[in-house]
Amino acid sequence: MKILYGIGTGPGDAELLTLKAVKTIERSDVIFAPNNKGKNMALDTAKEYVKDKRIVLIDFPMGAVTKKDYEEAARIINREIPKDGQGAFLTIGDPMIYSTFIYLMEEIERKSLGIQVNIIPGIPSFVAAAAAAKLPLTVKGDNFLLCDEFNGDLLKNINSISILKSLRGKEEIQNKLEKEKFDYTYVRRISLEEEGIMKDREKILSDRNYMSLILARKTKEEE
Amino acid sequence: MKILYGIGTGPGDAELLTLKAVKTIERSDVIFAPNNKGKNMALDTAKEYVKDKRIVLIDFPMGAVTKKDYEEAARIINREIPKDGQGAFLTIGDPMIYSTFIYLMEEIERKSLGIQVNIIPGIPSFVAAAAAAKLPLTVKGDNFLLCDEFNGDLLKNINSISILKSLRGKEEIQNKLEKEKFDYTYVRRISLEEEGIMKDREKILSDRNYMSLILARKTKEEE
Repeated sequence: MKILYGIGTGPGDAELLTLKAVKTIERSDVIFAPNNKGKNMALDTAKEYVKDKRIVLIDFPMGAVTKKDYEEAARIINREIPKDGQGAFLTIGDPMIYSTFIYLMEEIERKSLGIQVNIIPGIPSFVAAAAAAKLPLTVKGDNFLLCDEFNGDLLKNINSISILKSLRGKEEIQNKLEKEKFDYTYVRRISLEEEGIMKDREKILSDRNYMSLILARKTKEEE
Repeated sequence: MKILYGIGTGPGDAELLTLKAVKTIERSDVIFAPNNKGKNMALDTAKEYVKDKRIVLIDFPMGAVTKKDYEEAARIINREIPKDGQGAFLTIGDPMIYSTFIYLMEEIERKSLGIQVNIIPGIPSFVAAAAAAKLPLTVKGDNFLLCDEFNGDLLKNINSISILKSLRGKEEIQNKLEKEKFDYTYVRRISLEEEGIMKDREKILSDRNYMSLILARKTKEEE
């Protein structure tokens, strides 16, 4: 039987790969990654370990992926993994968190192609961001919410939040967080060269990087 | 200046350590971990990398840690890290998620002991559990909630939830999830020898392992 590993490569720093990710890549016959104009961030992260490997880039048209694209991706993967061989599909962050791999896995399992899918978790961006900014995500009794589309109602009942892809509507997010008394920090390109951690409202507003997220925490009442 | 690294060792499988965690442990002069009757899970996870290291176990009385315990821990850490040396404090999962290390870091920084604290993220248990069970935590547009104390109101406005330390009140949690039409999966001792993934209501109810969590997802409407 063929095996496909969905591998989370973490936020981008090669040192945040797990030992299991490295070992599984090294044992794979073929490496798959989404094609972003001939390159891919997950592939960059793992470049030291994929350099002697056969690499197959798969097209997932940005923002407009259709069922057909997943069918075609599954077909390519099935064709490229040798009989009884193993492939590795690399994905930034973690494969089960806002990832293209989820739909691909579902497509492969629905089709009963005879490919066993296994998943190797990766460090999610918001976890790496909290570490770099030294901001607790949760302490005992806390609720933490993760979202990629913000609305103010989400702040009810929670102590801590991470908003991914915060580029759109950033000012509105900031206004709402301030109104509801959340302290917030903006993290750009976590673990990468241009990493930035900002707390200043105007600096945050003027940053336009797509790879950014917000961590926020209900302000502690004075004791 | 002394440096203390707070290192997340992940859910327990040594292969889920990051390259950075291993490298940092290997470069450290002394390894710290919470003392659980002479042993510690994070230390077990990293045992291959700490075996030639000086190890200092620090007492944090289970369920009854006081400010004094953190003060004493900070004092021990300051004493044991050599001048201009580096120490590593190991913690299961991730240091910024429900971890004793958060309070310890705050204590060390409050005291201005001249110790620089850095954090190396780890794979959180719920991320590893989602990978093992092949359950998406979030797809585009989803909200995901993480909690260690469940109440039914938390299910409003969310698509996906992970409830840690689900041992207490498990039946009530199950009832509420069923009523609100969430599919749920119980994961015991993720990545460890006795790992178990269960969907059967009665089997879940009868399991009494403390190292367990629930992943749940709003049931998809039939199309």
